[in-house]
Amino acid sequence: MAKRNSKGVAAKRATKARRSAAADDDTRITALRLAPQPLSPEMAAYFAKCEDKLGFVPNVLKAYAFDMAKLGAFVAMYNDLMLAPSGLSKLEREMIAVVVSAQNRCYYCLVAHGAGVRQLSGDPVLGELMAMNYRAARLSKRERAMLDFAVKLTAAPWLIEQDDRDRLRRAGFGDRDIWDIAAVAGFFNMSNRVASATDMRPNSVYHGQAR
Amino acid sequence: MAKRNSKGVAAKRATKARRSAAADDDTRITALRLAPQPLSPEMAAYFAKCEDKLGFVPNVLKAYAFDMAKLGAFVAMYNDLMLAPSGLSKLEREMIAVVVSAQNRCYYCLVAHGAGVRQLSGDPVLGELMAMNYRAARLSKRERAMLDFAVKLTAAPWLIEQDDRDRLRRAGFGDRDIWDIAAVAGFFNMSNRVASATDMRPNSVYHGQAR
Amino acid sequence: MAKRNSKGVAAKRATKARRSAAADDDTRITALRLAPQPLSPEMAAYFAKCEDKLGFVPNVLKAYAFDMAKLGAFVAMYNDLMLAPSGLSKLEREMIAVVVSAQNRCYYCLVAHGAGVRQLSGDPVLGELMAMNYRAARLSKRERAMLDFAVKLTAAPWLIEQDDRDRLRRAGFGDRDIWDIAAVAGFFNMSNRVASATDMRPNSVYHGQAR
Amino acid sequence: MAKRNSKGVAAKRATKARRSAAADDDTRITALRLAPQPLSPEMAAYFAKCEDKLGFVPNVLKAYAFDMAKLGAFVAMYNDLMLAPSGLSKLEREMIAVVVSAQNRCYYCLVAHGAGVRQLSGDPVLGELMAMNYRAARLSKRERAMLDFAVKLTAAPWLIEQDDRDRLRRAGFGDRDIWDIAAVAGFFNMSNRVASATDMRPNSVYHGQAR
Amino acid sequence: MAKRNSKGVAAKRATKARRSAAADDDTRITALRLAPQPLSPEMAAYFAKCEDKLGFVPNVLKAYAFDMAKLGAFVAMYNDLMLAPSGLSKLEREMIAVVVSAQNRCYYCLVAHGAGVRQLSGDPVLGELMAMNYRAARLSKRERAMLDFAVKLTAAPWLIEQDDRDRLRRAGFGDRDIWDIAAVAGFFNMSNRVASATDMRPNSVYHGQAR
Amino acid sequence: MAKRNSKGVAAKRATKARRSAAADDDTRITALRLAPQPLSPEMAAYFAKCEDKLGFVPNVLKAYAFDMAKLGAFVAMYNDLMLAPSGLSKLEREMIAVVVSAQNRCYYCLVAHGAGVRQLSGDPVLGELMAMNYRAARLSKRERAMLDFAVKLTAAPWLIEQDDRDRLRRAGFGDRDIWDIAAVAGFFNMSNRVASATDMRPNSVYHGQAR
Repeated sequence: MAKRNSKGVAAKRATKARRSAAADDDTRITALRLAPQPLSPEMAAYFAKCEDKLGFVPNVLKAYAFDMAKLGAFVAMYNDLMLAPSGLSKLEREMIAVVVSAQNRCYYCLVAHGAGVRQLSGDPVLGELMAMNYRAARLSKRERAMLDFAVKLTAAPWLIEQDDRDRLRRAGFGDRDIWDIAAVAGFFNMSNRVASATDMRPNSVYHGQAR
Repeated sequence: MAKRNSKGVAAKRATKARRSAAADDDTRITALRLAPQPLSPEMAAYFAKCEDKLGFVPNVLKAYAFDMAKLGAFVAMYNDLMLAPSGLSKLEREMIAVVVSAQNRCYYCLVAHGAGVRQLSGDPVLGELMAMNYRAARLSKRERAMLDFAVKLTAAPWLIEQDDRDRLRRAGFGDRDIWDIAAVAGFFNMSNRVASATDMRPNSVYHGQAR
Repeated sequence: MAKRNSKGVAAKRATKARRSAAADDDTRITALRLAPQPLSPEMAAYFAKCEDKLGFVPNVLKAYAFDMAKLGAFVAMYNDLMLAPSGLSKLEREMIAVVVSAQNRCYYCLVAHGAGVRQLSGDPVLGELMAMNYRAARLSKRERAMLDFAVKLTAAPWLIEQDDRDRLRRAGFGDRDIWDIAAVAGFFNMSNRVASATDMRPNSVYHGQAR
Repeated sequence: MAKRNSKGVAAKRATKARRSAAADDDTRITALRLAPQPLSPEMAAYFAKCEDKLGFVPNVLKAYAFDMAKLGAFVAMYNDLMLAPSGLSKLEREMIAVVVSAQNRCYYCLVAHGAGVRQLSGDPVLGELMAMNYRAARLSKRERAMLDFAVKLTAAPWLIEQDDRDRLRRAGFGDRDIWDIAAVAGFFNMSNRVASATDMRPNSVYHGQAR
Repeated sequence: MAKRNSKGVAAKRATKARRSAAADDDTRITALRLAPQPLSPEMAAYFAKCEDKLGFVPNVLKAYAFDMAKLGAFVAMYNDLMLAPSGLSKLEREMIAVVVSAQNRCYYCLVAHGAGVRQLSGDPVLGELMAMNYRAARLSKRERAMLDFAVKLTAAPWLIEQDDRDRLRRAGFGDRDIWDIAAVAGFFNMSNRVASATDMRPNSVYHGQAR
Repeated sequence: MAKRNSKGVAAKRATKARRSAAADDDTRITALRLAPQPLSPEMAAYFAKCEDKLGFVPNVLKAYAFDMAKLGAFVAMYNDLMLAPSGLSKLEREMIAVVVSAQNRCYYCLVAHGAGVRQLSGDPVLGELMAMNYRAARLSKRERAMLDFAVKLTAAPWLIEQDDRDRLRRAGFGDRDIWDIAAVAGFFNMSNRVASATDMRPNSVYHGQAR
């Protein structure tokens, strides 16, 4: 029966260490030391727009800012997938983002896009359900089919076949919608891995949003 | 390219359906119809104490209230494990609860005990980290060893051997502490499964606590 | 081509080591050194009843005897689940115990509850089938549905949904029976992990029972 | 709360069904209807030798007896692997057989070779440990290294590399011994699958042997 | 013993069906009907460059050509990752592409990038090894560390931690190189899923290249 | 940003090392040093027949040639399974071989039997599809049912039941055919493991065959 006396001390030290680490998340964004490049005019304008609209620049953008070509390509793809017109609503795309990130247990994306689901749906519980176990949520047939496809595509892409696409069609999705579901699910399978590989930390402001 | 026009309508219907389902969670607690028994005097007193201290009776207790023997046995084991004196702090025991529940993707326990971690630590981010991926948290060696053991014991109990216990000992845990880690992790492997089997819904009040 | 000559010697040493270890199982019950507490009058009576009815005290009870509160809570929950009136027969509950323990490859529980299945069914082969691969057994639809649910709940509790409960209902189980299946399966998911975490050893007497 | 009254009736019917099925195992050996060929003189002599030495012909041999070429090839390979001189003792080879069959949850091979381990070791508990979780057995370093290799080779053969072979060498195995471990483990990965694919049933006599 | 006579007929029909399907691969590129948009001048120039340099336009580009924004974003990201200056050679990036695609069993990417490895290395066997089991290849420590990281990041991104990055550093990779390994591995985790979700078919010309 | 300058040098060294290793494959056949025995007259004749018909002796035969009993048993079983009359065509048996070997990621068997599929089908693409993801191939119902069974039997033999056999029957297979599918799949589950355990290297000539 060891070390009971040291329990209180150890716990306090642990809490303190966690706090200062947590405070760090907005300054030390990844585990890699990559010097930021000067922002291109286009990217400077984009960062300013983020500050203006969101009140902050998402850390993922700062993480890519060591190289303007990579930052630009990421932003172009992200904005097309998540914000351009689509048969999927913005909320549906954020739901895919969170459910894929839950499958991959990606801390960065669960925090950032969990907040997105809460905001777009006005339903804080829905954000938790997507992050914890989407099967426990009360979903429409359309939503459920969409998320089942995204999760299977994430966990075992080699098993996707015609039947899976047909299930989406029966739930009302067209071929272009199927592309969009695949593309969003695919994109977060990429982002989850870049975030996990680099220990990317989400802006701390996300945690309290739309609770 | 199918059904764009119906998107808005479908989305609204889905949101509305989710809302009324969410509102339901505090009345329809599990998917099973089991008529509540009259509370025994001991359990009536315990429920009153919950109301007094927490402001509500956790839904898991209401779920067990169809049978006083089962409710009593559950409460006795829960209170001993989570509240009795132990080499593990209450926060450490809640951290185990959440990390095990994350491995098992148990909605009820992630919500209820995620709130527990936030309250006991005063650190809302720590609750998120335990629920999403504890490996991304800044933990002490002691905390990390404890959670690694709990997760291995959850995912592949047949692989636990002397080396695993020795790793806990090297992190400062005594034999009694090892028992307590195993017992708490074991308990949530039980509770996660009872909750998942019955679609148990957490009290909605948990979601906003200690954010 | 190394060490042929040492084969015989090594084999004899191995056998001897195993034997003395096996003999140990009834004295060194777990890998943890936890001094037994004096039994409470209630627990003393219960141990006496075990000696009387079974001829021995199951090692799991001795393992918990370092703390009367833990022992009492375990015994209360165990006896309610496995012995109280239920829509499941005692044999059915033991079958769940063994099938869950096979999924978790828990040596203690497979030995102790395998003996239970052999005794309650009077069918030694059924005990082997439950421990080895229940899918190879000739089971009724009711038994098969019950065990399929217990195994899915053990292996991937997050996948259990309304369909799974409905499959039990179609096999003739009521809502209270579903609770009992979940509770027994959940309980052995706990016990398997406490046993594996502590290297708990079954009483050697179980091995020869009801063969 | 459904169907309590029918419980007793259902249970009796289930037991009766199981019994007659179990009795069947020695006559209906696989789920395939394949008419036995007349035994070749060589195979007739071999079957007679089995009857003489074991008191019965193992069902696997009867299962192959629809085709003398297949039966002959199986017997030749089996006898070379399990009975010919080797750096591995016969008990060690049977231990590999059982541990591989446990990984593959093969009912036929666990029953037949579990009996083999009990007989060759004179240690009934060892047979149970190999079938349930070999990691819980008190093994020599040599035995443990051998079984770890066999299990890894069974579960994830693509991960075997030089390090794994070197671990065997450090445990005292020569290159020829490594071949034999691989060949025995490989053979049971074949046999387990032929048995599972055809629902092969073990001779009922195995169950009581050497308990 | 059924249908022996029909074997020859069935086989011929199967071969014929496969052939015409194979011939199809260069015209029916995915399972989705998405009408190609007119190419933007930039993309028209890029397709012309492909024709010029490769002799054909890779089918993945044709698959994205239903939407110029998506095609442009894909091309920008692809070219930056695979062709821009990097601490990783072009061959190393192709090796990551194939090894990730092997983990995900992605037919399109294995064919297209397997050809890439064969061409860049001048070593047809290396292409096969990357597609079949990279652990069987004779690799430098640097290559092995890089591929181990990419595969772990693919299979279980939530397990990547500081130790994994440090292993890359010990193999000689800098922080920028670690980003590039992660980004390439991440990108193919996206592309594999878009290809699998849409049943994307590789240009048949790849198969014979650089054998 | 480390070690850019050393990139070119490291890459050249790696390529050179790979080449000499690859050249090695036809001389150093496994990672085990096992002195070849003089061939028995029967085996000498068989090797001569291989040289005559194939132009080379497959390395797997050379690997077994340290022991005539083992070589003879392997050859007898292999020839019966792959070449004797059967309800399965030789191509179908090779397709099973490759699909099983893909599941087990066995380099030796994928190379040797991938060449077999290419030769017997005259369809180089079919060989790639079997090795990469057979689900992406355009298969007849018969072929698909056969390969689904073989892959399930490989990945999770304990899950095979009457339904799986009935699916084969509905696809036109008789009971003898089911045995043959199981036996071929089983055999490659053995061979894959012997090859992986010993790092067996395929003859380099296979790579270019029937492309």
